[in-house]
Amino acid sequence: MNPHIWTTPPRSVEFWFDFGSHYSYVSSMRIGQLAQRAGLNVIWRPFLLGPIFKSFGWNSSPFVLQKEKGEYTWIDIARECRKYGLPWKQPTSFPRSGVLPMRVAVYGERSGQKWVEAFCQEVMLTNFARDRDIDDEALVTELLVQLGLDAKAVLAEALSADNKLALREQTEEAIRRRIFGAPTFFVGREMFWGNDRLEDAIACASRTGGAL
Amino acid sequence: MNPHIWTTPPRSVEFWFDFGSHYSYVSSMRIGQLAQRAGLNVIWRPFLLGPIFKSFGWNSSPFVLQKEKGEYTWIDIARECRKYGLPWKQPTSFPRSGVLPMRVAVYGERSGQKWVEAFCQEVMLTNFARDRDIDDEALVTELLVQLGLDAKAVLAEALSADNKLALREQTEEAIRRRIFGAPTFFVGREMFWGNDRLEDAIACASRTGGAL
Repeated sequence: MNPHIWTTPPRSVEFWFDFGSHYSYVSSMRIGQLAQRAGLNVIWRPFLLGPIFKSFGWNSSPFVLQKEKGEYTWIDIARECRKYGLPWKQPTSFPRSGVLPMRVAVYGERSGQKWVEAFCQEVMLTNFARDRDIDDEALVTELLVQLGLDAKAVLAEALSADNKLALREQTEEAIRRRIFGAPTFFVGREMFWGNDRLEDAIACASRTGGAL
Repeated sequence: MNPHIWTTPPRSVEFWFDFGSHYSYVSSMRIGQLAQRAGLNVIWRPFLLGPIFKSFGWNSSPFVLQKEKGEYTWIDIARECRKYGLPWKQPTSFPRSGVLPMRVAVYGERSGQKWVEAFCQEVMLTNFARDRDIDDEALVTELLVQLGLDAKAVLAEALSADNKLALREQTEEAIRRRIFGAPTFFVGREMFWGNDRLEDAIACASRTGGAL
């Protein structure tokens, strides 16, 4: 994979996320508009949270492992969605695996496709507003077709050995950057963790032009 | 201890904190002004985070135990202090124990003293802007004298068996309420975790008049 993708291009903000992360859902619905207003591009960087949590010795999400925090989080995220005017339905399965749509998103971003944001938002809505599984070929096909794409061709690219490796490498890069949760935003070496820091990341990218 | 203190009085917001918590420092410097503008009272509720973390099987702060998150947090809190115009100096010891000043704050709040906010802010500044120990009788005496108080008399009240019990009870109440970190705000049964939710807690108290 071209190493240039690991630095933030000028006038851009990097959005690191996992389709299983509920706070990443909120950011995925907000970041496009905020970036556009600031004249910034969004670099969509899906990665797998699972291996990161495993590297901390955890076998699931901290929201599952720490019961009190997890319980609170369901209340908080519902309030957050109300605050931002987003649909919300508590998923009956959490955290959901999203390897297949993540591979599609990685392929889309690597090849500079314009549909990455719309695709990611639809996957997030499927998980967090429609409470449906996302790691499912029929579902992903359905979403791609809705976007007017050749689903078969996109899936073939997404499932190529080279593209599978790209998602693994992106996850390894997340570990190298010491990412510990999602969403995480980067502007150069400056890291911002959590949907609550999205505005700060945008402001940082606007201020520095991404040249950090 | 009178059980009425465990419900939020009308037009009030409860501020649950530990003097060792850096994000509680930020809230302690902000909450008074925000509450005043909204016509609300602040109920200062110090409690010990240590027993809460122990109940999760942890022997220290999650910021110490989870290295990556802890490292990030030092960067984030410095940025937050800049954002809010607060002085900041990374403490050389973290998390600092603050049992003695916590007992003073509990006594002050229980007996309706007007100096609670000023005292708590000075303790926080000692820890997070001056990098000095806070669980220290000479220091607490110094701060009380600066506030024009009879330090000896206040310390005698703070160290009474009844008041020590009050801090223990407040910590147990925090566990009953399923508090898992600090700062935490309550408006009736509505819980808000983290300095990032302070404005939401204030808005909630304004809207409901605390009647939740």
